[in-house]
Amino acid sequence: MTNPTATLLISCPDQRGLVAKIANFIYANGGNIIHSDQHTDFAAGLFLMRIEWQLDGFNLPRDLIGTAFNAIAQPLGAKWELHFSDTIPRIAIWISKQDHCLLDLIWRQRAGEIAAEIPLIISNHHNLKEIAEQFNIEYHHIAINKNNKAEQETKQLEILQQYQIDLVVLAKYMQILSADFIHQFPQIINIHHSFLPAFVGANPYHRAFERGVKIIGATAHYATADLDAGPIIEQDVVRVSHRDEVDDLIRKGKDLERVVLARAVRLHLQNRVLVYGNRTVVFE
Amino acid sequence: MTNPTATLLISCPDQRGLVAKIANFIYANGGNIIHSDQHTDFAAGLFLMRIEWQLDGFNLPRDLIGTAFNAIAQPLGAKWELHFSDTIPRIAIWISKQDHCLLDLIWRQRAGEIAAEIPLIISNHHNLKEIAEQFNIEYHHIAINKNNKAEQETKQLEILQQYQIDLVVLAKYMQILSADFIHQFPQIINIHHSFLPAFVGANPYHRAFERGVKIIGATAHYATADLDAGPIIEQDVVRVSHRDEVDDLIRKGKDLERVVLARAVRLHLQNRVLVYGNRTVVFE
Amino acid sequence: MTNPTATLLISCPDQRGLVAKIANFIYANGGNIIHSDQHTDFAAGLFLMRIEWQLDGFNLPRDLIGTAFNAIAQPLGAKWELHFSDTIPRIAIWISKQDHCLLDLIWRQRAGEIAAEIPLIISNHHNLKEIAEQFNIEYHHIAINKNNKAEQETKQLEILQQYQIDLVVLAKYMQILSADFIHQFPQIINIHHSFLPAFVGANPYHRAFERGVKIIGATAHYATADLDAGPIIEQDVVRVSHRDEVDDLIRKGKDLERVVLARAVRLHLQNRVLVYGNRTVVFE
Amino acid sequence: MTNPTATLLISCPDQRGLVAKIANFIYANGGNIIHSDQHTDFAAGLFLMRIEWQLDGFNLPRDLIGTAFNAIAQPLGAKWELHFSDTIPRIAIWISKQDHCLLDLIWRQRAGEIAAEIPLIISNHHNLKEIAEQFNIEYHHIAINKNNKAEQETKQLEILQQYQIDLVVLAKYMQILSADFIHQFPQIINIHHSFLPAFVGANPYHRAFERGVKIIGATAHYATADLDAGPIIEQDVVRVSHRDEVDDLIRKGKDLERVVLARAVRLHLQNRVLVYGNRTVVFE
Repeated sequence: MTNPTATLLISCPDQRGLVAKIANFIYANGGNIIHSDQHTDFAAGLFLMRIEWQLDGFNLPRDLIGTAFNAIAQPLGAKWELHFSDTIPRIAIWISKQDHCLLDLIWRQRAGEIAAEIPLIISNHHNLKEIAEQFNIEYHHIAINKNNKAEQETKQLEILQQYQIDLVVLAKYMQILSADFIHQFPQIINIHHSFLPAFVGANPYHRAFERGVKIIGATAHYATADLDAGPIIEQDVVRVSHRDEVDDLIRKGKDLERVVLARAVRLHLQNRVLVYGNRTVVFE
Repeated sequence: MTNPTATLLISCPDQRGLVAKIANFIYANGGNIIHSDQHTDFAAGLFLMRIEWQLDGFNLPRDLIGTAFNAIAQPLGAKWELHFSDTIPRIAIWISKQDHCLLDLIWRQRAGEIAAEIPLIISNHHNLKEIAEQFNIEYHHIAINKNNKAEQETKQLEILQQYQIDLVVLAKYMQILSADFIHQFPQIINIHHSFLPAFVGANPYHRAFERGVKIIGATAHYATADLDAGPIIEQDVVRVSHRDEVDDLIRKGKDLERVVLARAVRLHLQNRVLVYGNRTVVFE
Repeated sequence: MTNPTATLLISCPDQRGLVAKIANFIYANGGNIIHSDQHTDFAAGLFLMRIEWQLDGFNLPRDLIGTAFNAIAQPLGAKWELHFSDTIPRIAIWISKQDHCLLDLIWRQRAGEIAAEIPLIISNHHNLKEIAEQFNIEYHHIAINKNNKAEQETKQLEILQQYQIDLVVLAKYMQILSADFIHQFPQIINIHHSFLPAFVGANPYHRAFERGVKIIGATAHYATADLDAGPIIEQDVVRVSHRDEVDDLIRKGKDLERVVLARAVRLHLQNRVLVYGNRTVVFE
Repeated sequence: MTNPTATLLISCPDQRGLVAKIANFIYANGGNIIHSDQHTDFAAGLFLMRIEWQLDGFNLPRDLIGTAFNAIAQPLGAKWELHFSDTIPRIAIWISKQDHCLLDLIWRQRAGEIAAEIPLIISNHHNLKEIAEQFNIEYHHIAINKNNKAEQETKQLEILQQYQIDLVVLAKYMQILSADFIHQFPQIINIHHSFLPAFVGANPYHRAFERGVKIIGATAHYATADLDAGPIIEQDVVRVSHRDEVDDLIRKGKDLERVVLARAVRLHLQNRVLVYGNRTVVFE
């Protein structure tokens, strides 16, 4: 599996012959498919597919694959993305004051669970700077207040560009991004500390406690302009009881948050997530 | 354990000596405690307790226990309920068109999992009458429309009284009860087909599908005038994926609904649920 | 989706071009694929695939599909099965004294969750005969003891043949089938009341209680001559605590057993389970 | 809750008046009970209780509580332990080559989730020494081979004594401790990377893969001379599928291991675990 692979994520109007045409393209060029999975959303009339093949022995050079595949995709009205497994994506982790998701992502990256580089941390606070130093990650402090948001977002975009960032992970970044920012940099995964759509917005654990729920959750989703309403990638839950006070919910929730966020980031980096409308197909 | 027991559910302002005073009351009268559990809600300054003891060898006759305990409870400002395990409660199951929760409750009652009688089914539809006949349960059809609700609720209350019903279980009864009805008959458990507070209201599975959640849930709670906002007794969840269409969510949800409702009814009948504010303590 | 479909389950040595060849076969004959999923077991060098397409508009008559596909499959060294969604399989449910899995399967079949006929119940006891009568299912009592097993198995095989049974579901049938029986009728799903391979054999709940586990489980698997060692289709678990006595484990376990068994039967009937070695691929 | 508390863990033959006598002892001395929970094991005829009260306002000085309570406990034939919440236990973490449980425990201790000091790490390998240095924890390398085990265990016991260790946490320490060692230092929590009693012994993930299970688990238990057979404190599980290779099971298992171990350590440190026979009561 250390063999480099190419992956296509494809969506198009459902029609006869799609699997055959796509598989033929790979076979005709000598590729060995190692993962092929498709989903049809009948209500939406949409065909969605993930197909991954070994580049070893594939006859097309990498820079021609896209053009060649487009000749097939265009007549089908297909949208598609092409990824190579040995192109290592670059992640910026955005944080506020809490360190558990940040540390967890760094550990996983160091342990080889997350195939990415983490060259950059952005925070609106100073308190976790030491962690960045310890792991030799650049740390940019960008304070946000009511008046400077637009200006600071411009700065953030510049830094993302400067570090050639492919994915922003909001690892408990307690600020809202503007629609304009997300429009300019749409590859953002956020962790929300509730089982969405329950407890949209601030202080979900306090509200979960007040509501007296018996289960709490966490949700990893792509960020959209509409807060906490983006396409969900992964969710998980844990049981709580009357004995759990707000602090206990927060503590138990942390364990959920880091696992759910890490799973979502990993799925995204393996190009297993296909967004359509406000939904995701997760090709596991 | 076939020995009959008495159970006290007590709540009062937190203060020194509560466990001792309550346990002494039972010990002084020769009772053998088989379950004693308490919870302190520090924020609310509230002490909550469940204590169960064997009546065999207890010196007080049943009809005097309440009076005797009140002498202790009153100075403490305590609210309390006294239950005997061999007083079999009488349940009315209310249904609309779906049978899975109804059948499940009947099966569990027949299997001895639910210690209650089920003498009455009320429905706003006709289609499940056969089930009632098959199990020799009285079936009252009470149609509800926009104009006759108040009138029909009066009729329902009369029937509940006539059958000496202790607990109403809304087993997928797709009608809203008025605040007035609930005020007059507050012992009502409802099953809501979502992980509350997500998807309050109608068609939760359709909305879960649209939102693209990765987990669905079910919630059993006491009915209150504010729809789907009553104290939660039990919740559970199951994973779903992009492959699950609305029909699949409904199918998977049914399995949750019947288990969650049955657990809640059982906990209630064993006097393990203590409501305070909009929360429950479940003494498992 | 009420459109009839054909499904191929295929396994063969991994090699280039498999997806293309299989998809081409369907496309060339005018079929519209609605589900296509494959898995490669790299360690075993094995390619496994499920592909389902609509028969409406497919150019090959049903009785020629197998022969036509075999021309493709044989050179690949492939094993395959072909199923039509409108061929309704016939199930025999085998039981001993417990009714919960039996009732559950019947309910689901009546509710349309399980697309099969249930013409036959076989039991080594008399006590559930009434249920068979109530649902108009034939009930054969075949008592098993130490001396008559071989003889009774012959009788059982005759009855299965007589009723044209496609699948035997051991719904808490507390007898062991001989290797010879399983060899002659291999399509058997069993529910074991533990999280296999924990507590193989008899009385798993008693042994789980003694071991003091904090979670119990249930396992649905294909029956093999080696007891409780067959390929696992589905498992699930539920938390227990020190408060749960053996009776509580049995009660909680029942809820697991019926759900796990029902899921496995449904997956099997939808031709989503492919066995290889002692493992299953479940194409969900 | 920052108020220091005392906690009694009590077990004795079941008899009338136990809750009253114990609660009276605390009330008579002016204590305010904040947690009181008991369990009766009817089969074993055993009463088990945890009771926690605030020391603020308690009339007995700490060093007399034990003696005073013994006057009550002895006639009852009770075994008991007394703990004070502001006596911070000292943990030694034992590791081999894997760092995930170690890092997790350190992180939780730093975050205040685990109320203990971690002055000591013991390992039979060198590779994680850096972590110890980074967090200012003493690191003792004690290599184990077939011939030096008894000798090295003597050394380990000396070091435990030297550092005044209260609890050993085997955080993926891949060596077996002798019965003699455990006899001399019985306070040991181990994490086993399977859902015990499934896959006792070595390489549980490899064996889980071979068995084709659909769920894997992790188990935290007290160490006993009989490997993997000690009293279970906590277990949890996660779903896997045919797509998960051994490496995926290991990766998913790591997330279980660290959470399950951390929960068990926390429960132990809060004196919520009472062992009797080979079972635990966990007073949550």
